[in-house]
Amino acid sequence: MSQITIADVIAAQDRINHLIHHTPLLASSLLNHWLGHNIVFKAECLQTIGAFKIRGASNILAKLAQQNNLPNRIVANSSGNHAQAVAYAAKQYAIPTTIYTVESISPVKAAATRGYGAEVKMFTSRVLADEAVAAAGEEPDTLWIPPFNHPDIIAGQGTAALEALQQMDTTPNAVFAPCGGGGLLSGTLISTRAFAPNCQVIGCEPLAANDAARSLRAGQIVPLPGPAITLADGAATPSVGSHTFPLLQQLDDFYEVPERHIQYWTQWLQHILKVHVEPTSAMCMGGVVNWLAKQREPQTVLVILSGGNVSEATMRQIWANPDLSIQPSLALTLD
Amino acid sequence: MSQITIADVIAAQDRINHLIHHTPLLASSLLNHWLGHNIVFKAECLQTIGAFKIRGASNILAKLAQQNNLPNRIVANSSGNHAQAVAYAAKQYAIPTTIYTVESISPVKAAATRGYGAEVKMFTSRVLADEAVAAAGEEPDTLWIPPFNHPDIIAGQGTAALEALQQMDTTPNAVFAPCGGGGLLSGTLISTRAFAPNCQVIGCEPLAANDAARSLRAGQIVPLPGPAITLADGAATPSVGSHTFPLLQQLDDFYEVPERHIQYWTQWLQHILKVHVEPTSAMCMGGVVNWLAKQREPQTVLVILSGGNVSEATMRQIWANPDLSIQPSLALTLD
Repeated sequence: MSQITIADVIAAQDRINHLIHHTPLLASSLLNHWLGHNIVFKAECLQTIGAFKIRGASNILAKLAQQNNLPNRIVANSSGNHAQAVAYAAKQYAIPTTIYTVESISPVKAAATRGYGAEVKMFTSRVLADEAVAAAGEEPDTLWIPPFNHPDIIAGQGTAALEALQQMDTTPNAVFAPCGGGGLLSGTLISTRAFAPNCQVIGCEPLAANDAARSLRAGQIVPLPGPAITLADGAATPSVGSHTFPLLQQLDDFYEVPERHIQYWTQWLQHILKVHVEPTSAMCMGGVVNWLAKQREPQTVLVILSGGNVSEATMRQIWANPDLSIQPSLALTLD
Repeated sequence: MSQITIADVIAAQDRINHLIHHTPLLASSLLNHWLGHNIVFKAECLQTIGAFKIRGASNILAKLAQQNNLPNRIVANSSGNHAQAVAYAAKQYAIPTTIYTVESISPVKAAATRGYGAEVKMFTSRVLADEAVAAAGEEPDTLWIPPFNHPDIIAGQGTAALEALQQMDTTPNAVFAPCGGGGLLSGTLISTRAFAPNCQVIGCEPLAANDAARSLRAGQIVPLPGPAITLADGAATPSVGSHTFPLLQQLDDFYEVPERHIQYWTQWLQHILKVHVEPTSAMCMGGVVNWLAKQREPQTVLVILSGGNVSEATMRQIWANPDLSIQPSLALTLD
C-alpha cells in the first residue's frame, strides 16, 4: 500500500485545475440562526457531472497524460456517479470507454453516461458486471479505473476539501464528509490534517450500510453481509478498501445515520440551500447536529456536499412524506 | 405613470450591490448537447432569500436611505417570496416590519419570514389581508411596499438581467423570464433593450393563470376571473399593473405554458442543473423549447431562474409522477 500525502493532493489540484469547476461555498443565514452555529457547505453537487467523483477520475488520467502513458481504452463498473465521471474524464482525452453496469440503472443516468460519449454495457446482476469489467481490464492497453481504492483517486477526491479550506475565511472546527468506499473521506482527511491540523475530520455513513463503522470497531475491513437498502445510494458501497481503511482509522469521529434522518435532511438542505443535493450528501447533517449538541461554544463546520445526482424514483421517495417542521434544530433530529 | 429607464436600473445596481448576492450563471453541457442550443441560466434561486425579489425590495429602501427618508414602519402583503424579501431588506435598516398574509401560508415560509425579523399577521382570506395592509399603509410614517407595480421595484428587478448580461461572454439571442405581476419581466426588458438591443425579450406565464397573455391580446389589463390553480404559484398573480403593462406590451413574444410542461421542466431543471428551482422559474423552458423549434441556427438563450422557494406540498406534487424520459428534446415538449 502506497502512502498518500498532501503533496499528492496539491499535485492533483494543479493537474485537474482546468478540467473541473471551482464549486462555490454555500451557507444559510436562517439555518445558522436556528442552529446557533456556522455551517459552510462545499457544493460539489454543482461540480461537472454533478459530483466530486470527476476529481479522482480526472486525476488518474491527467497523471497518465503527464507520464505520456494514457491507455487506448478505459473501462469502469458503476451505476452511479463514478460511471459519469469516468465517461466525462475519458472524453477529455478522446479515449474510448465502456461502462459495465446493471440493467436496473436509472435510464436517466445511463443516458447521461452515454451523453458523455461512453458505451454502456448492462448486466442482470452487479456480480456479472464486476466479472465482465475485470476481464475487460485484462485486455492489452486497457485501464480499469476503480471507484475509490487507488492512491490517485483518493488524492483527486482530496482536492474538494483542499479547495474549500482555501476558499474559507476562517478555519473550521470540524469537517464532515460521507463515507461510501472512503475515497472522498480519506482525501478530506489528508487535506484537512495538512491545512487545518486542529480541525476534526468526521465521517458519516447510513446506519443501514454501516460497513465502515463496523470495520472501524473491528479494526479490520468488514464487508456488508448483503446488498444495503438506503436512500444514500452513494454510500451503499459493500466495503471500504485497502487504501482507504488505514486513513479512515485516523478519523476523529464517525456517525451512523438512520434513514429517517437522511430523508429529513435531504428535504431541509434542498429547501434551504436551494441545491439538489443527494441523500448521500445531506446525510452528513445527521452527524453534524449530533456532534454540535456536544459542543459548548459556537462552531464552524464544513460539510462536503458530495453530489446532486438523484434518480427520479429517489426524489419521489424523498418528498412522499414532507417532514419540514417549522425549522430544523439540534433538538429536533436527536433520537 | 413614471417612465423607467436603464439609468434607473444602473442606479439600482450600484445602490443594492452590497445587499445582494451576485448569483452565478449555470449551464448543462448535456442539455445543450441534447437541444443543440446554448442555454444559460441566471440562478436567482441562489439569491439571498432564495429569489430575485430581494433586488426590488432592497432598491426601494436603499433609495429612501439615500434620500434620508426611511419610514419608521414597513408593511407588505404576500404569502410568498415578496414577504421574505421585504422582511430581509427591512432588517438591514432595522425597521420594524409586519407582513399581512393568509392562514394557509406554508409554515416553513412563515417561519423564514419571522426568522428575518418580521411580524406575521394571518387572515382567513387574501381579501382580508389586502384590506388590512391597505389600512396599515395609511398610518403615519408607514411604508407599504408593493410586490411589483412600482418604478423602484421594477428597476431593482431589472438588475438580475443586467448582471447576467454583464457576466455572459456572448450576447444572447433571446432572454426569457416568467411573468406574475410583470416586475421581473419589465425590468428584464429595460436592461436587455439597453445592453443587447438585437436580443428578443420573451415572457412566459402559466396557461392556467394567463391574465398577462389575455391582457396583451386585449390591449388592456384583464384580471384573472378568479383564483388560479397552478404549480407556478409565483406567477399566479391576479393582474399585471399600470407600471408593468406598458412595458410588457413591448415584448417580442409571450408563451402560455400548460401545467404538465411546468411540472416536466421543474423535474428536468432540478435534475440537470442541481438547483432547487421553483416551478415558476422552470416554466420558462416550456416557452424556450417552443421558440427554439422555430429557429434555423443554434441560438444562445438566457433564462432568468427567478427563485427556489418551493413549499413541501409542491415538491411532493412535482415528484409524485416522475416524467424524466431519457433526455429532454425540442420534440418531446411540444404538444
